[in-house]
Amino acid sequence: MTQNIAILGASGYTGAELIRLIAGHSSMKITALGANSKAGQSMAEVFPHLRHLDLPALVTIDEIDFSQIDLCFCALPHKTSQEVIAALPKDLKIVDLSADFRLRDPQDYAKWYGNKHAAVDVQKEAVYGLTEFYREEIAAARLVAGTGCNAATGQFALRPLIAAGVIDLDDIILDLKCAVSGAGRSLKENLLHAELSEGYHAYALGSTHRHLGEFDQEFSAVAGRPVQVQFTPHLVPANRGILATCYVKGDAQVIHETMQRAYADEPFIEVLPFGEAPSTRHIRGSNFCHIGVVGDRQTGRATVVAALDNLTKGSSGQALQNANLMLGLPETEGLMVAPLFP
Amino acid sequence: MTQNIAILGASGYTGAELIRLIAGHSSMKITALGANSKAGQSMAEVFPHLRHLDLPALVTIDEIDFSQIDLCFCALPHKTSQEVIAALPKDLKIVDLSADFRLRDPQDYAKWYGNKHAAVDVQKEAVYGLTEFYREEIAAARLVAGTGCNAATGQFALRPLIAAGVIDLDDIILDLKCAVSGAGRSLKENLLHAELSEGYHAYALGSTHRHLGEFDQEFSAVAGRPVQVQFTPHLVPANRGILATCYVKGDAQVIHETMQRAYADEPFIEVLPFGEAPSTRHIRGSNFCHIGVVGDRQTGRATVVAALDNLTKGSSGQALQNANLMLGLPETEGLMVAPLFP
Amino acid sequence: MTQNIAILGASGYTGAELIRLIAGHSSMKITALGANSKAGQSMAEVFPHLRHLDLPALVTIDEIDFSQIDLCFCALPHKTSQEVIAALPKDLKIVDLSADFRLRDPQDYAKWYGNKHAAVDVQKEAVYGLTEFYREEIAAARLVAGTGCNAATGQFALRPLIAAGVIDLDDIILDLKCAVSGAGRSLKENLLHAELSEGYHAYALGSTHRHLGEFDQEFSAVAGRPVQVQFTPHLVPANRGILATCYVKGDAQVIHETMQRAYADEPFIEVLPFGEAPSTRHIRGSNFCHIGVVGDRQTGRATVVAALDNLTKGSSGQALQNANLMLGLPETEGLMVAPLFP
Amino acid sequence: MTQNIAILGASGYTGAELIRLIAGHSSMKITALGANSKAGQSMAEVFPHLRHLDLPALVTIDEIDFSQIDLCFCALPHKTSQEVIAALPKDLKIVDLSADFRLRDPQDYAKWYGNKHAAVDVQKEAVYGLTEFYREEIAAARLVAGTGCNAATGQFALRPLIAAGVIDLDDIILDLKCAVSGAGRSLKENLLHAELSEGYHAYALGSTHRHLGEFDQEFSAVAGRPVQVQFTPHLVPANRGILATCYVKGDAQVIHETMQRAYADEPFIEVLPFGEAPSTRHIRGSNFCHIGVVGDRQTGRATVVAALDNLTKGSSGQALQNANLMLGLPETEGLMVAPLFP
Repeated sequence: MTQNIAILGASGYTGAELIRLIAGHSSMKITALGANSKAGQSMAEVFPHLRHLDLPALVTIDEIDFSQIDLCFCALPHKTSQEVIAALPKDLKIVDLSADFRLRDPQDYAKWYGNKHAAVDVQKEAVYGLTEFYREEIAAARLVAGTGCNAATGQFALRPLIAAGVIDLDDIILDLKCAVSGAGRSLKENLLHAELSEGYHAYALGSTHRHLGEFDQEFSAVAGRPVQVQFTPHLVPANRGILATCYVKGDAQVIHETMQRAYADEPFIEVLPFGEAPSTRHIRGSNFCHIGVVGDRQTGRATVVAALDNLTKGSSGQALQNANLMLGLPETEGLMVAPLFP
Repeated sequence: MTQNIAILGASGYTGAELIRLIAGHSSMKITALGANSKAGQSMAEVFPHLRHLDLPALVTIDEIDFSQIDLCFCALPHKTSQEVIAALPKDLKIVDLSADFRLRDPQDYAKWYGNKHAAVDVQKEAVYGLTEFYREEIAAARLVAGTGCNAATGQFALRPLIAAGVIDLDDIILDLKCAVSGAGRSLKENLLHAELSEGYHAYALGSTHRHLGEFDQEFSAVAGRPVQVQFTPHLVPANRGILATCYVKGDAQVIHETMQRAYADEPFIEVLPFGEAPSTRHIRGSNFCHIGVVGDRQTGRATVVAALDNLTKGSSGQALQNANLMLGLPETEGLMVAPLFP
Repeated sequence: MTQNIAILGASGYTGAELIRLIAGHSSMKITALGANSKAGQSMAEVFPHLRHLDLPALVTIDEIDFSQIDLCFCALPHKTSQEVIAALPKDLKIVDLSADFRLRDPQDYAKWYGNKHAAVDVQKEAVYGLTEFYREEIAAARLVAGTGCNAATGQFALRPLIAAGVIDLDDIILDLKCAVSGAGRSLKENLLHAELSEGYHAYALGSTHRHLGEFDQEFSAVAGRPVQVQFTPHLVPANRGILATCYVKGDAQVIHETMQRAYADEPFIEVLPFGEAPSTRHIRGSNFCHIGVVGDRQTGRATVVAALDNLTKGSSGQALQNANLMLGLPETEGLMVAPLFP
Repeated sequence: MTQNIAILGASGYTGAELIRLIAGHSSMKITALGANSKAGQSMAEVFPHLRHLDLPALVTIDEIDFSQIDLCFCALPHKTSQEVIAALPKDLKIVDLSADFRLRDPQDYAKWYGNKHAAVDVQKEAVYGLTEFYREEIAAARLVAGTGCNAATGQFALRPLIAAGVIDLDDIILDLKCAVSGAGRSLKENLLHAELSEGYHAYALGSTHRHLGEFDQEFSAVAGRPVQVQFTPHLVPANRGILATCYVKGDAQVIHETMQRAYADEPFIEVLPFGEAPSTRHIRGSNFCHIGVVGDRQTGRATVVAALDNLTKGSSGQALQNANLMLGLPETEGLMVAPLFP
């Protein structure tokens, strides 16, 4: 049976990535593409790399007949997303890719995002979209809140260790290296090729990045006590990829075994042999996440490194994985495409 | 029915690209991977981005039992390829990705490649692998010689125009911009990131590039008279892509119409609306070729621009397209994956 | 004697490049930096790479006391520049880096730039700033109009050949590959790192790029008859550099000798040995221009390739070279810094 | 008075960088260039970006008459360097850029580099070349051992803090992001553009990188007790730059004040305002080091970030700075060139 799919926010990178992935999906059909700012244009104009696909033209969200839609992906900017979703039919299945429904406590949302949440009731329905850890809830959910791409990477690296109690919870350092597409298609001076391409830098220092809201919420829930990590993201001159280097205190071998056990049956998480570390180039364009564990020369310390593609496993791939579950389809459908290298 | 596939030269970029594409093919199974220099290693070691696939380990070519193989891709360096293929079973279907069987006249081969051809008899069997123009011969062939990646790009841009006689055959200029993966995984100083990444240059100037052998052979055959283009390739700091900018004399509208007619039914060739030009970023990682035609301010002159991915449509994608034909499978099977952008 | 220098448009790339170069100049002192949009900020905020320099803060142009200024560089956008310069003191020495005073005929300006020229009288004073060909006029000028960066590159490659009559004037093809900083610090989607970095494309096809106004004006003047080149620029994923590949008809050896003679005494133009071609990576960050001449396999055809840095020799370096002449200083002062490689 | 300079290892990146810098030095003259593997070639062949300079051709080291040399830079690979230097005149002033004389204890050398030191006596003469901390010893030295580029960056960020006792010495984490030129011009698969350019990864995990020998030696000496940092370098797709992100425990304001005090009079070290962080793009091609200090949301934790150019301040710039001191010249001579941006 064909599932009719709508994508709101189809003119951004996560929207385009959804289309790329769904183009290889055996039972989904894209029947509506919403993008208010570019309504009236064809996808060939907005994203010429999708020119070969038979896709509907972009329309305003108001023009979409949601009664014909089985599932709607919402790839809009945060704040806009909550307003749009609040106005959608209450029984429509939705995977939201924005930050709007990730934090369960509206006060946490207000603290990290600086504005009052406009759809608190809808928030109550939302399931946090980290598939590997919320699989059953997602399968039963109407609304799934996709995770932050940094938040996903950090959690893949740390969540099983916190759950198993094999690392010191008060001394976790998370040094992230992010590629530029994570910042979206927005016109900012620091995202220009001439500004970005030959240098790199840390930003949101002092643990001020918004994805910390997710780390705090999830790690504390898993640990059953407050956990705060020290987190610094860096912007690196590449288009896709997040590399999380985590410095933890614990037994490296135990950490590796814990990791292997946690992900033994996961189709997209590859735990490397002990002592090996991943590279973003080897997961590029795919839904895979590679994780490595290495012991330090100082006993009782270890480094855990996770790599994924921010647009795929960190965002649109995760969204499709969740949509598969919500629609009762095989979880990996449309997502087994191999990484692109070189 | 599953087709058993062998790939020789599996540790190079075109070998890895074949594996990436075949991983998404519904009826091919890779049963042997030959790579003499890395025999004994797993693909996860040689190409960690293919780690998630269930692949045989690399072996020497001698170790492969070709009686179980339905079709063999040969992704070896030129000169090695002809020696290896000469020793393979005479009824084995082979798609060769090297330069060894592209030129029909052994003297042309000797002229452009600097050594005597070692398998002249086998050469006689070979069909030139530019699918869109040799489809029937390829379907019936035992041995198909994949084209040069530059040669493919230039031919997609010019071949229909030469065949239709709508451009001046004595004044064709072909300015190519090639990405670095076309040079393979070889250790050369000028391919180092620090050497290449922030600059670009012309090479093989004066129409001395080996792919001219193919242009001469094919364009002259199509025209029924000798045709020589002036051809300069440039090396550009990107990993995938070839952009051919062709300067021709003729009526731009007629050229565009000729192009549209020639490729109207082709699944992988997209002729853009008149006046638009393609970009390599929009075909990256895919088997598509985008072609644009623009008229010049000087009447009677036009610019034709073609873009494709050298590793896919220019090499391994073309090879798989040909293999599909040779095995009686749908030509597009495994090849409709969308480009990766950004 | 110290020369007091003002720079208008100090928050753009050509402004910053002027400051970088003047920082190494023995007798210029920057006493005013104008940048209306960022007035009040320090250069350390606008361009942190200039943080170590002792520079005045940015001010609005109105705030500058031009009576204390010996020479003013005007690095403003075109159209703005003509308005600002028209209002500056009539005896102030000015090097303009915009397009506003390059075309002598106001009708040419209107044709290529789409608006009526607002300072036709001032235009009459302007000397075209291609130093190597207008040296004496520049030394005597009050107002020098810096050339387009593409226009400079193409002229270095072709001007001596047109002047000497050694090439066919009716069949000149100019294929340019430009780096991204030539587009300035403007917020355009196609200049984002994620859009640009892994692909390349032709733009302004059909000989519609504005720098053709300069080519037409200059080449026709040199030839004493109308000359029109066919010109296609391409945008390449690098930050600095222009590579001009020129396809011409003429005797390659004669062309090379003509080139060597023309530039024998030039401090910044290096003609390579016959048969060699330049690379943008070898002139990066410098005021040098490298030129190569190669003969084609078809007798009577040649390829001429010129490489320079668009921000230096193509713009701010040229401007400083001209300013040196206008102030009676050694022409090379502040400009002999070696290229940065890798 | 002109100082005659020899450079051994002139065909590598640090050799070329020395030439680039010395080309702008007022009193040094390069009189000999040694490069055994490329002897007989001109610098224009080996490094075309230095084509405009009047330089001696490359010769073998044996051919150099060291009696005419005032100071010799030795930019050879480690292990080769100690053998060559042991055979040079005993009164020749030498700045070595290799790893061979950095570690005072030959056993430390053997441990980190895997071979016995071949010039233990010469080692005793060597002064560690971190200019800002060994200025007087360097001025009096015959042989100065240039530091590792990573080692320099980490020490600029941490040394004043360890010396002042304002951070916890048992919990220092050093996450480095290195550009590719630090690996030199060597032909390694992982340094190819196609391999490196679109991804990034950690290497030498578990605190196994050789530059840890320098950190251990220097930090322990400064602290007066053993200090071991946890150190992970990452390879990033850029050509120049090192960014050190240091996670430390201490009062962020005190750390910032300590840093400001330590570097108040340093011409090349810029401590940014509290809360700001540096970028490698803003020191590219220069001898400057930018340092930022930011407090974490968790009281008692801070992040210190240092950025420098590995080829300049991390290697050849440092070497020239030391040579200036050894020759009694102004320390900053030839080194004040502004960074290249964009």
